Amino acid sequence: MSELGDHVESAVLIDHHVHGCWAPDVDVPAGDRIRFESALNEADTDPVTAVGDGFDSQVGFAVRAHCAPLLDLERHVGADRYLARRTELGEAEVSRRFLRAAGVSDWLVDTGFADGLVDTGELTATSGGSTHEVVRLEEVAEQAAAAPGDYAAAFDEILAERAAGAVATKSVLAYRGGFAGDLGDPPPALVDIAAQRWRDAGGTRLTDRILLRFGLHRALRLGKPLQFHVGFGDRDCDLHAANPLLLNDFLTDSGDTPIMLLHCYPYEREAGYLAQAHPNVYLDGGLSITHLGAQATPFVGRLLELAPFRKILYSSDGAGPAEFHHLGARLWRTGMTRVLDGFVADGEWSAADAKHVVDLIASENARRVYRL
Amino acid sequence: MSELGDHVESAVLIDHHVHGCWAPDVDVPAGDRIRFESALNEADTDPVTAVGDGFDSQVGFAVRAHCAPLLDLERHVGADRYLARRTELGEAEVSRRFLRAAGVSDWLVDTGFADGLVDTGELTATSGGSTHEVVRLEEVAEQAAAAPGDYAAAFDEILAERAAGAVATKSVLAYRGGFAGDLGDPPPALVDIAAQRWRDAGGTRLTDRILLRFGLHRALRLGKPLQFHVGFGDRDCDLHAANPLLLNDFLTDSGDTPIMLLHCYPYEREAGYLAQAHPNVYLDGGLSITHLGAQATPFVGRLLELAPFRKILYSSDGAGPAEFHHLGARLWRTGMTRVLDGFVADGEWSAADAKHVVDLIASENARRVYRL
Amino acid sequence: MSELGDHVESAVLIDHHVHGCWAPDVDVPAGDRIRFESALNEADTDPVTAVGDGFDSQVGFAVRAHCAPLLDLERHVGADRYLARRTELGEAEVSRRFLRAAGVSDWLVDTGFADGLVDTGELTATSGGSTHEVVRLEEVAEQAAAAPGDYAAAFDEILAERAAGAVATKSVLAYRGGFAGDLGDPPPALVDIAAQRWRDAGGTRLTDRILLRFGLHRALRLGKPLQFHVGFGDRDCDLHAANPLLLNDFLTDSGDTPIMLLHCYPYEREAGYLAQAHPNVYLDGGLSITHLGAQATPFVGRLLELAPFRKILYSSDGAGPAEFHHLGARLWRTGMTRVLDGFVADGEWSAADAKHVVDLIASENARRVYRL
Repeated sequence: MSELGDHVESAVLIDHHVHGCWAPDVDVPAGDRIRFESALNEADTDPVTAVGDGFDSQVGFAVRAHCAPLLDLERHVGADRYLARRTELGEAEVSRRFLRAAGVSDWLVDTGFADGLVDTGELTATSGGSTHEVVRLEEVAEQAAAAPGDYAAAFDEILAERAAGAVATKSVLAYRGGFAGDLGDPPPALVDIAAQRWRDAGGTRLTDRILLRFGLHRALRLGKPLQFHVGFGDRDCDLHAANPLLLNDFLTDSGDTPIMLLHCYPYEREAGYLAQAHPNVYLDGGLSITHLGAQATPFVGRLLELAPFRKILYSSDGAGPAEFHHLGARLWRTGMTRVLDGFVADGEWSAADAKHVVDLIASENARRVYRL
Repeated sequence: MSELGDHVESAVLIDHHVHGCWAPDVDVPAGDRIRFESALNEADTDPVTAVGDGFDSQVGFAVRAHCAPLLDLERHVGADRYLARRTELGEAEVSRRFLRAAGVSDWLVDTGFADGLVDTGELTATSGGSTHEVVRLEEVAEQAAAAPGDYAAAFDEILAERAAGAVATKSVLAYRGGFAGDLGDPPPALVDIAAQRWRDAGGTRLTDRILLRFGLHRALRLGKPLQFHVGFGDRDCDLHAANPLLLNDFLTDSGDTPIMLLHCYPYEREAGYLAQAHPNVYLDGGLSITHLGAQATPFVGRLLELAPFRKILYSSDGAGPAEFHHLGARLWRTGMTRVLDGFVADGEWSAADAKHVVDLIASENARRVYRL
Repeated sequence: MSELGDHVESAVLIDHHVHGCWAPDVDVPAGDRIRFESALNEADTDPVTAVGDGFDSQVGFAVRAHCAPLLDLERHVGADRYLARRTELGEAEVSRRFLRAAGVSDWLVDTGFADGLVDTGELTATSGGSTHEVVRLEEVAEQAAAAPGDYAAAFDEILAERAAGAVATKSVLAYRGGFAGDLGDPPPALVDIAAQRWRDAGGTRLTDRILLRFGLHRALRLGKPLQFHVGFGDRDCDLHAANPLLLNDFLTDSGDTPIMLLHCYPYEREAGYLAQAHPNVYLDGGLSITHLGAQATPFVGRLLELAPFRKILYSSDGAGPAEFHHLGARLWRTGMTRVLDGFVADGEWSAADAKHVVDLIASENARRVYRL
């Protein structure tokens, strides 16, 4: 391995957007095939129906290549053997191995999606790293809808309380109609009307644009970084409306609050442009890198195009099987080494340049922006 | 060549979307320069006006590199010599050589574009492979417009009759206004009105959205795979409206009928996302690979991103010069070998993984989905 | 270096879209850090605030790699040393070195952005190359607004006079609302009304769609090539509305006038499609190549996809620091050599094919289209 490769391998990461891994479940073996294969497909929210559908994919091959050795199996082992070994070890031991192998010092945990996942305390204990909370705005909205009295006041109070112990907020606007249209701060009278309508309808799964916009602008006032799901995700997301270029006017009016564009596939080049155009915009390639597997390297290269190097972060967006928390790091490290070794071999970058950029993305940018 | 390369070279293909090659024409020499060079430009439907315009392109260079040896010429031979040799051999012999060199066992032939092309019987005879029909929905519509009585009933009757002997249907909605807007099943009363209006206007070249949507939903009921032209094609296609992400709602409501996204350039990553998100969505890179020539390899790599490997198929979309039927296969094989050799060399995939994926894309996926 | 590399290195270029370099300024040292680092960020129009923000980017690393040796510094020298040397040499000497190193025989200068830049006479003197003017249509419009009498007549008169001594026109419609919507020739009565409204409002920074369209169609009548800013640029540009596919109808109706799509990132593949679909459409990757730095090579490859090779041109879009005039050429040469060496090594192109394409893009296409 190149000296640069050694540097990348030993870099301690801040995973600035992640969820918990699966909580051990006495009713489901750790190697349950339908559950595991379904988790290998991010976009299709229905369970897989045919054995092998999940494993016949880039991420399925990556699990067999890169995760098997951590379970004492040979590289590229068959899926049956892999799952049997998962059951033998149990979820807790599997998670312990993968989380510790990721080389992450700090996990910034979006707690808005937590069903069946460990909480931040368990993640700390299992991984040996620190955890920090990221508050999901749409969850705050649901809490405000369930609270008594004025919606806006309740939202502000809950947000203030939750954000006090958190490092950032997160929006899943991409899943609630996307980025097209007016994203300005709505007038209070409209917020009142929309809140009343939503409360009357039950106050679950926020899709009202007025209230979504209200939440974003309240988050901007906090000053803490605001994360946006961008691009690739599950089928609820209309990918055409999750193009970050549609956020351009919002970004222009977002002041100094750092805005973090997450995932970004297939819009990573568009996101890089926005990171150059707006002094407060950042991006990562989390989740995308994991699902690209053997094709992650050119994607990692494209993250290094227009975005200034102080605006790029690392995340895994791992959720569920702890393989994802590990693969995010594993494939990012490999991709960075291949891309940067190429730049250095071509004489385009010095080796010192390359190490500097590795350090920025691995942890320095996140440490600065999140004030860790 | 690598062992994997041998495997790719010997894979027998199912070309799941193709047209006939040129029928021999006593009035036009096989090496007619304007006709041949014009065929090298897919997008511009006007004849080329300057000698060399067609050959000065990726596909023109690919013809000289990969087709010349099959006509007993040296690789990279000049265009003049190439065309002279075409004339010497004649269209029938040229077609015989290229079709047989493609290594295709089954051709799924879209008969909706057939002007000057051989029919399926001649394609069988010349290629030595089997042929199967793909019925173009817009052609069924024109036949229904010309039939007596109720349009919808006539459409159903003609579609049932034609589809009985066919393996799939095909839509060129991309060329008839694109994918934006409502693609729901229109109410019968609207279909009646639209059909009357179209019949009054002559009943040719269907562009009415109501009737286009009607045809799509009738095809869905058949259960046989429904192919969509997506992305790159000729100038009649508004490429901005041929982004497959605009099909998302239609795909969500399409039930179990397999939907095949064809060509896909420059939206191959978007199409791959849809193939992951929807259990009944598949994709290929036919036509695009041919026209990309020396740049086909990274495109083949991008086809192997989010799409599960059981959802990717092979096609050439060859139409006209039989060079295209051959080049589709030639460039796909080379691209696959280069991409997968890279994955294996990097330790990302095992060699067995790579062969498995080759087999899936070469024929297994098509055989399963089309029930061949 | 390969023989092909030698051929690329010695190719004399026509830079078909460029601006002046910085004029020497007695009040600002040539190595002024804020000014220089701000110039390294194309998209963010505000000055950089933190030292290093500009240099920590692909173009910043490219300056240190490729420009430092021309200032007698070692490759990859630190930013402080680089800027100090710039001040030592002074702007005039710095410009002289970079402009002459670019290997450009002819500069086609967009004079519509000239603040703080040398004029065409100085560019000729400093570079040793010839200069030719490109007239910016929106500047003609402002001159017509300031002229007495009928707006349309004034526009025609000014355009005729300025274009007589120029080789092309240029539109920044991308910065004035983008390409979506009707781009047809507006009726004279509407032009009169819009012109009156604009004059009443002061007649600066044209954003009125009627008048923008009017200018485009007047330019089409000239017959001289019409350049469009496409894609990547500064923050004033709504990148989502700068997708060249939105120009499709305009291009279809543009007759024989050559239309040049500039920059194109991240829409270079879409632009290549348009260059194949429309006989009068051309493209380049100027500005994008410079800012991509070490990642320029795959971008250069993507420029060589669907666009016929007679439709691709070279430009730097250099403006300001003469480093950009040099880097455009430096990174284009390196990218072309790497991409084409790969094509030849793979057996896809002959070495003669590669040299032919280099010659077309370096100068032959520009010489033919601009009648130089």
